[in-house]
Amino acid sequence: MSRADDADRLARLALSHLTEPGNLRIAALVTELGAVRVRAELIEQRRLSGEHEDIAVRLESCHPEEMLAAGESAGLRYLVPGDEEWPHGLDDLADAGAVQEMGGVPLGLWVRGALRLDSVSGAVAVVGARASTSYGDDFSMRLGADLASAGRIVVSGAAAGIDQAAHRGALAAQGRTIAALACGADRAYPSSAGRMLDLIAEEGAVLSEVPPRGAPLRHRFLARNRLIAALAAGTVVVEAGYRSGALNTAHWTERLNRPLMGVPGPVTSASSQGVHQHLRSGRATLVTQAEDVLELVSKAGEHLVAHRSGATRTRDRLTTRHRRVLEAVPVSRRAHSDSIARTAGIGLAEVRSALAHLQRCGYVDEDVDGWRLGDGIRDEIRDRAW
Amino acid sequence: MSRADDADRLARLALSHLTEPGNLRIAALVTELGAVRVRAELIEQRRLSGEHEDIAVRLESCHPEEMLAAGESAGLRYLVPGDEEWPHGLDDLADAGAVQEMGGVPLGLWVRGALRLDSVSGAVAVVGARASTSYGDDFSMRLGADLASAGRIVVSGAAAGIDQAAHRGALAAQGRTIAALACGADRAYPSSAGRMLDLIAEEGAVLSEVPPRGAPLRHRFLARNRLIAALAAGTVVVEAGYRSGALNTAHWTERLNRPLMGVPGPVTSASSQGVHQHLRSGRATLVTQAEDVLELVSKAGEHLVAHRSGATRTRDRLTTRHRRVLEAVPVSRRAHSDSIARTAGIGLAEVRSALAHLQRCGYVDEDVDGWRLGDGIRDEIRDRAW
Repeated sequence: MSRADDADRLARLALSHLTEPGNLRIAALVTELGAVRVRAELIEQRRLSGEHEDIAVRLESCHPEEMLAAGESAGLRYLVPGDEEWPHGLDDLADAGAVQEMGGVPLGLWVRGALRLDSVSGAVAVVGARASTSYGDDFSMRLGADLASAGRIVVSGAAAGIDQAAHRGALAAQGRTIAALACGADRAYPSSAGRMLDLIAEEGAVLSEVPPRGAPLRHRFLARNRLIAALAAGTVVVEAGYRSGALNTAHWTERLNRPLMGVPGPVTSASSQGVHQHLRSGRATLVTQAEDVLELVSKAGEHLVAHRSGATRTRDRLTTRHRRVLEAVPVSRRAHSDSIARTAGIGLAEVRSALAHLQRCGYVDEDVDGWRLGDGIRDEIRDRAW
Repeated sequence: MSRADDADRLARLALSHLTEPGNLRIAALVTELGAVRVRAELIEQRRLSGEHEDIAVRLESCHPEEMLAAGESAGLRYLVPGDEEWPHGLDDLADAGAVQEMGGVPLGLWVRGALRLDSVSGAVAVVGARASTSYGDDFSMRLGADLASAGRIVVSGAAAGIDQAAHRGALAAQGRTIAALACGADRAYPSSAGRMLDLIAEEGAVLSEVPPRGAPLRHRFLARNRLIAALAAGTVVVEAGYRSGALNTAHWTERLNRPLMGVPGPVTSASSQGVHQHLRSGRATLVTQAEDVLELVSKAGEHLVAHRSGATRTRDRLTTRHRRVLEAVPVSRRAHSDSIARTAGIGLAEVRSALAHLQRCGYVDEDVDGWRLGDGIRDEIRDRAW
């Protein structure tokens, strides 16, 4: 198994400990100079002002070897770019710009759980409001289960509401799921999710770019959202009000040029307003079931959704012309062909030919009093409503 | 008031009595030769086979002057192209092709009601399933009322469910509405709609291309749907299953290159499936309220919908940088600026400057034990959930 250079790993760990996730300047410097050199220059030269001056002071008192050992003894591994297990979907963050002044490829990821992150190809993010409705929760759980049953990894943020429902659906289907946290991957946040996070780690993964024991601060949620979008091949927003954080994840999905999907709901539900706005503007594609999602996140030509339609009725198999004649046969009495022709507005000769065809199909029968509908079709045709 | 030529009117009336609405061949012949000549040739030459042979026989026994007089004594007027009152939106049907083998500009329209049809510019069609839900009915009624209150004429088909709710909403708002029927304009179909149709005719109009007393046959519903689409500047489908006739009206709206709009609903509702399919494919635009509809059916720049968002929070007015510092001030105790700087991941000098700004805004205050949140913002910031 290939492994990144240890010095690079330790430098990234130290930098991640002393800067906040999503710090674009640090990410850019690391890309340009490498983590080892950025760390060394920050310590030795203190050439950068403001934010980085402060970091430099703290870098000197930081011991990444000890942190790595402590994390590993707590069951966490620290992945960095270059590791075989590194999920390459995250690399696209290098070119995805900034949302609310945050962005960039994470310096590293703390991970607990059995799932190898290099196997996340084709994963689907399912996110949404904490302030969800039972409609949204039910849909999210079912979607999580259906995607997991289709072999997809479900990525979400472990938050109350839509996120947790998606994770639980995947778990219920014996599937694998990834929870990306805004706090340390060893923490249970929200606290109600503790047992669920343990279950997720059994077959899936709990991960964070925040060091172990790190607190869930607001800007860390924003930074975390870009990981959810970047780990997945596409993002489904199940419910989101106008101000939901799920729309931040949606924004990252757009920046990454990956499919953004939205689930419609009642227009009377505030929890669907943000989704409807994205659907209305064309930024998100409407999905109503796992098959719709699979079609959008799969390679071209895979998982095409069959055009859905209602039950086929007998008369659907007729030509329009024959159907019009059939429609003109009275439901409750017999009629002669000239009367049927007048009702249908079709010439008598053509009507006679059509009636003969319909008779061969068993749709009509004739006696001396004229034509009537066959038994099989009578109930169907009686509902003339269109 | 300009009036079409009487011979043309009578010829059209005779032809409409003996052919079915939406007959494309007759429409094409009338466009090419004029109604008078088509009628004469059909009678004199019997040169056309099949359908037209039959029509010719019946044309000879048809007396349009008597029909016109009988219609007028029943309170109906017969409009044809060339009449000042003729709604020119219908003329676009000449170039809109065929749907299910029907199409074309109607030969004429039987109308009852006070509304002059040349005033329908900007009307909105609101259509949907007979098999509607209370959600759909409620929405349709509200939309009908809101559109009518905005001065728009609401066009629909008087069917049970969504159509009737739209008419009733417009009536409740003292607005004008048009019911286009598949039977004669003097008939009440469905029979439950009789009283409603009378109310519609008081300020609005009930119309049909089917002669008075004509029966509501299935293909006449299909032909009727093109009138609904063509009388309106755009069509809203409120609820429609996969097989709903409302999707036929939607098809006509597309053929006419006019805005097609759909209302989302719960994905669990069969009555929204047809709408969702059209939204998903991009054929229809999602709308959730009358303002959305008005934006789409109005001239460019009129009725623009303001970008909707949730309530503005105090901290929205801060820069991202200042907001991050504010977020780092503990909720339940005081903290010194170096501790706040560490939490925020921002240099001490910058944090001090930010705290001074936040203090001027009243968001934080300081004493010897350090900084704490101001009273006004404490509740707001305590909900750190994003």
